[in-house]
Amino acid sequence: MPAAMNGAESLVRTLVEGGVEVCFTNPGTSEMHFVAALDRVEGMRCVLFLFEGGATGAADGYARMADKPASTLLHLGPGLANGLANLHNAKKARTPVVNIVGEHATYHREYNAPLTSDIEGLAWPMSSWVRTGMSAAEIGPDGAAAIAAACTAPGQVATLILPANTAWDPGTGPAPVPAIPERAKAGDAAIAAAVSALQSGEPVLLHLGDRAVRNEGRVIADRIARETGAHLMAMTSNARIDRGAGTVPIERLPYPIDQGIDALKGFRHIILIGATPPVGFFAYPGKPSLLAPEGSSTIMLATPEEDQIDALERLAEAVGAPPAEPVAAAPRPKLPTSGPLDQDTIGQVLGALIPKGAVICDESITTGRNFFALTRDAAPHTWLQLSGGSIGLGIPMATGAAIACPDRKVINLQADGSGLYTVQALWTQARERLDVVTLVWSNRSYAILRAELTNVGALNPGPKAIGMLSLDDPALDWVSLARGFGVEGRRVETLSDFIEAFQHALANPGPHLIEVAL
Amino acid sequence: MPAAMNGAESLVRTLVEGGVEVCFTNPGTSEMHFVAALDRVEGMRCVLFLFEGGATGAADGYARMADKPASTLLHLGPGLANGLANLHNAKKARTPVVNIVGEHATYHREYNAPLTSDIEGLAWPMSSWVRTGMSAAEIGPDGAAAIAAACTAPGQVATLILPANTAWDPGTGPAPVPAIPERAKAGDAAIAAAVSALQSGEPVLLHLGDRAVRNEGRVIADRIARETGAHLMAMTSNARIDRGAGTVPIERLPYPIDQGIDALKGFRHIILIGATPPVGFFAYPGKPSLLAPEGSSTIMLATPEEDQIDALERLAEAVGAPPAEPVAAAPRPKLPTSGPLDQDTIGQVLGALIPKGAVICDESITTGRNFFALTRDAAPHTWLQLSGGSIGLGIPMATGAAIACPDRKVINLQADGSGLYTVQALWTQARERLDVVTLVWSNRSYAILRAELTNVGALNPGPKAIGMLSLDDPALDWVSLARGFGVEGRRVETLSDFIEAFQHALANPGPHLIEVAL
Repeated sequence: MPAAMNGAESLVRTLVEGGVEVCFTNPGTSEMHFVAALDRVEGMRCVLFLFEGGATGAADGYARMADKPASTLLHLGPGLANGLANLHNAKKARTPVVNIVGEHATYHREYNAPLTSDIEGLAWPMSSWVRTGMSAAEIGPDGAAAIAAACTAPGQVATLILPANTAWDPGTGPAPVPAIPERAKAGDAAIAAAVSALQSGEPVLLHLGDRAVRNEGRVIADRIARETGAHLMAMTSNARIDRGAGTVPIERLPYPIDQGIDALKGFRHIILIGATPPVGFFAYPGKPSLLAPEGSSTIMLATPEEDQIDALERLAEAVGAPPAEPVAAAPRPKLPTSGPLDQDTIGQVLGALIPKGAVICDESITTGRNFFALTRDAAPHTWLQLSGGSIGLGIPMATGAAIACPDRKVINLQADGSGLYTVQALWTQARERLDVVTLVWSNRSYAILRAELTNVGALNPGPKAIGMLSLDDPALDWVSLARGFGVEGRRVETLSDFIEAFQHALANPGPHLIEVAL
Repeated sequence: MPAAMNGAESLVRTLVEGGVEVCFTNPGTSEMHFVAALDRVEGMRCVLFLFEGGATGAADGYARMADKPASTLLHLGPGLANGLANLHNAKKARTPVVNIVGEHATYHREYNAPLTSDIEGLAWPMSSWVRTGMSAAEIGPDGAAAIAAACTAPGQVATLILPANTAWDPGTGPAPVPAIPERAKAGDAAIAAAVSALQSGEPVLLHLGDRAVRNEGRVIADRIARETGAHLMAMTSNARIDRGAGTVPIERLPYPIDQGIDALKGFRHIILIGATPPVGFFAYPGKPSLLAPEGSSTIMLATPEEDQIDALERLAEAVGAPPAEPVAAAPRPKLPTSGPLDQDTIGQVLGALIPKGAVICDESITTGRNFFALTRDAAPHTWLQLSGGSIGLGIPMATGAAIACPDRKVINLQADGSGLYTVQALWTQARERLDVVTLVWSNRSYAILRAELTNVGALNPGPKAIGMLSLDDPALDWVSLARGFGVEGRRVETLSDFIEAFQHALANPGPHLIEVAL
């Protein structure tokens, strides 16, 4: 008779049978039985990171592209803590993630060994589901419940805490994933309210988020717009937009507070479909928190949790929208042949060179404000954004997206200040030979904060304040950083060099980094 | 009449007048008023990090050396989250830290903007005191209360959450720090119990932590030991030990579980003075959590919160201990002249070359197991350890220690796997021209976990498990990483090259990194 399968192996088998095929990890002692079980179970790809923020950001990028969760494996409270910033982004993007967090054996916790901490307390702010395993016999079902929680619409961060003895004691084998509830349908009253707004003759915005902003939703929203004259707009930050030539174009609510207020001015009704009410990213003195014009009405047609495609279909039918029409293909943007290397020409290069099927990870922050508009007519591609404002997502997200989509080129548009938070994930790109091109916008400053100083009314900043926004002493050398992590890097300072380097990176598989001097 | 001082300036002035002279930061929009106030207030040195784990680890290193808190300035929940792992270490080291965490304006929180999260929930697991500012008028007193909390013995992590409007609204100027309670004295019963153990004729261990393990405490403990035959031992991890030639030598409880049990075997009484009961760093199947021998008695003479020096003095008097004697100076270890470059010869080089007054930050993990013993007779120096087991402290802690002690050489003994967690702090060393030598033990693996696989009974690991412990594909290149962050680096592969490079780094101020091939 074979030896009993331990809890760790029961959990790994539960994950694999539940469709969780990748584990992004930085493990420690308390996770060694889980790690050892990976060699006894087929079907789990285990991807090592040098820092946990890489692992959680990769889990976010993976699930946005795979439409199913990956797992993470993290080392007690501090390991989870290091991953929380990108779990915050995953939570705000409504990405399904299954975190496995190692913990001291249940009987060891009371002795307050150095690594003891309140792991549940740390997990809750960035998780929608948290459970601590109580026994090896139950850890398989606990894992199955975590998968179900993660997959509950629209997608949740689920955190299962794995005490060491629930990993090494005898387990009970893989457990089946419980039934996952269907998305609820929008109420008839919500449909009726939206119809009434659309037929009022007043200006209406269809504000799209979650599944509604993917092309399937945009096609239906476009039918409604053509019938009623309504306008389409995505949220400022979106988990995933499939776009480019042949898809329904959509603009985004601008980030800067004044531009955001401006973009909504004139709308009498704002219909939310998978989107949340437009709010300022921050509060600014003397400016409103809510961006919708005073006196406008906001109609929640379908929440992010609800079935937005169904709601859009019903709304389209109710207003008598015409059938979908093929989107007229605008000409592909032309590669600029001369000019400075700046935000505009870079955006034009992206529009011209983004290859078909590419996955764009956008953590451009200030530099990339116009990239979205300038790539509207690029070859069809997918655009992933920083969703929760917690910088340091780009390199990890690109890493996870590349694991999910081995046949698609991943292009990471990376602000330099943000990229440094989780730069270690470059090493994982090299280790896994991932097809990722990282374009670093090297302005050597926290450029966004220069504008924000004014926006919040902190006028006439002195040298100390300015110094806190500057990354030029010493100048960061991204080519050396990339080399240190095993990635080929190059710095470019002219438009022609940028084009040449980008084309080279696109033509050659494996990770590349281009430091773009701005 | 001058314009009213805003809340941010009131807070900065409160901190400076309360003795908090350094702010380790990575700020964002919500902290801009605090940053702007730094130019209007004399006396606050503001030190920028590229990642918050650097800032919190530096605050730990600073306060261990300065014996007073620094502040951190962090950006909302995710910024705090990035700093939590090193706050965990600070909490376990009982280091005073004043965290200032920016937050949305109080009236903006309800709208759930992207960066909204439960900051208090995140703060509590790694803090002993948490408060959210309610108004600009109260933010000065809130800051003063945070200082008092941080300075309450033996030292605490205090976290003040600063909503943006409490920074920009009119404040009330600096507030005085409330009275900080004195350390409580040990009870007479505890003294009597310790006396009785020491006079029992049975083997007694004086287990020293917190202030008792600094040389002042060791001198008194040594007097007791000479009178009673008791043995001295420090905890496995210690916040700070001032040691080397002329100080009372002390060994540490070994980290490996079997060696730890062995070290305590034979003691009939364990007297804790600022130390906590010896426990396994982790639980291991079939091994005890508590390391004291069965049947032994544990006597808590003075908790970390209590006045350990007073307790030791009273105990010394009660047992009739002789006066302190000068510690006989053992010969300085000799520089090895030949041999391989390995853990033993490196330890000998450290023993020979550590300069007088150096601050040693020890995150050597596996490689450095014998460094402490081999440097016992080095020139007088201070030894800081990873206290909470949350790796990634070394580079930040060295950075903070160098800010606290500009006239002392700081030497960071850095495991490669751990160093990569917070490698960005090298940039701050370059920016601030700090006198830090980082010695990286480049074994390109999580070496500790290879032993731990066996210790936890995960035997015969397969290639996937082994792969999770390996950092050699691609090989990490620390010299390039250092260059990327503006620090001069060099890789050495022989003993003579190591000695030469280390001597060069010691002789030349400013940051240096030496990658030591193992």
